[in-house]
Formats: sequence, structure tokens, C-alpha cells
Amino acid sequence: MFKAKIFIKRRRTILDPQGKAVELGIKSLGFENIKNVRIDKFIEFEIDEVDEEKVRNEVDKICDSLLANPHLEDYYFELEKI
Amino acid sequence: MFKAKIFIKRRRTILDPQGKAVELGIKSLGFENIKNVRIDKFIEFEIDEVDEEKVRNEVDKICDSLLANPHLEDYYFELEKI
Repeated sequence: MFKAKIFIKRRRTILDPQGKAVELGIKSLGFENIKNVRIDKFIEFEIDEVDEEKVRNEVDKICDSLLANPHLEDYYFELEKI
Repeated sequence: MFKAKIFIKRRRTILDPQGKAVELGIKSLGFENIKNVRIDKFIEFEIDEVDEEKVRNEVDKICDSLLANPHLEDYYFELEKI
């Protein structure tokens, strides 16, 4: 069994309006020394399979066909044996 | 200057409806061996400050007062010197 930990990130060249809104919120709290706020998705799930190579292929397929928008987002992931 | 990498996670005892929906989606693709899908937020920003202890306190305050919902979510973060 493995746990997949997947980061789905909007490409840095593409505006992140939610991040911009949060940046304004943080600054309005008085923290003026922050910049480049980005909000991304972190997805975890468990996979009942013993072969790490198979797991890696499966997670790639799941990201490519469902989790990540290929026009806007990139992803990377780590696997943890559990 | 530091980069803060913050994970905001809904407590595991609290239902994650978005995770459940994605889990159904993954299973409908034919990947039946996955479970416990959770979708959380991953937030990054840069902080123009040299004192790591000050940065740590500042990020704690930002999380407590804006980024994390104290009723539903926990957070942890890593700092990277840049």
C-alpha cells in the first residue's frame, strides 16, 4: 500500500486571482513584507498496490486524466510506502 | 528572504466532500484500488525578513488570523531561505 501526495500547481506565468486576493488580505493585516502568494492544491490518497512502478504509472494517469488541467497546471507527486 | 510553504488541512475527522467527489471520479476511470482521497490547500509566499524566528511568528499569525479556519482546519509550514 502506498500514499500518494500530489501537488497541483497553476503555472507561475498564469495569474492566480485567489492568491492575489489573499495577498491583499495579508497586507491589510499589516504584514507588508510578503509577496508572490500562490494557492495550489495538495491531494492525498491511498493506493492498494505493492509494485511502486505500477503505482507511479497509475498516479500519472489519474493526474493526467482527472486531477490536473493540462492547459493551466503542472503536477508532481511523492509516494510513501505505508 | 524566506519562502513559506504552508499546508492547510481539513481535520481528518471532518468530511471532505470535494475529496469524496474526486474519489468517485477516479474510481469511475477504473482505478478501484484507491481510497481516502483528501484535497487540501498548499499556499506559498515570500517574506522579506532575515530573522527566521520573526518569520516563523509572522507566518503563525497570518495562518491563525486569515488562512486557516480554526474550527475545521489545521496547518503546518516549512520555511526555505531564498
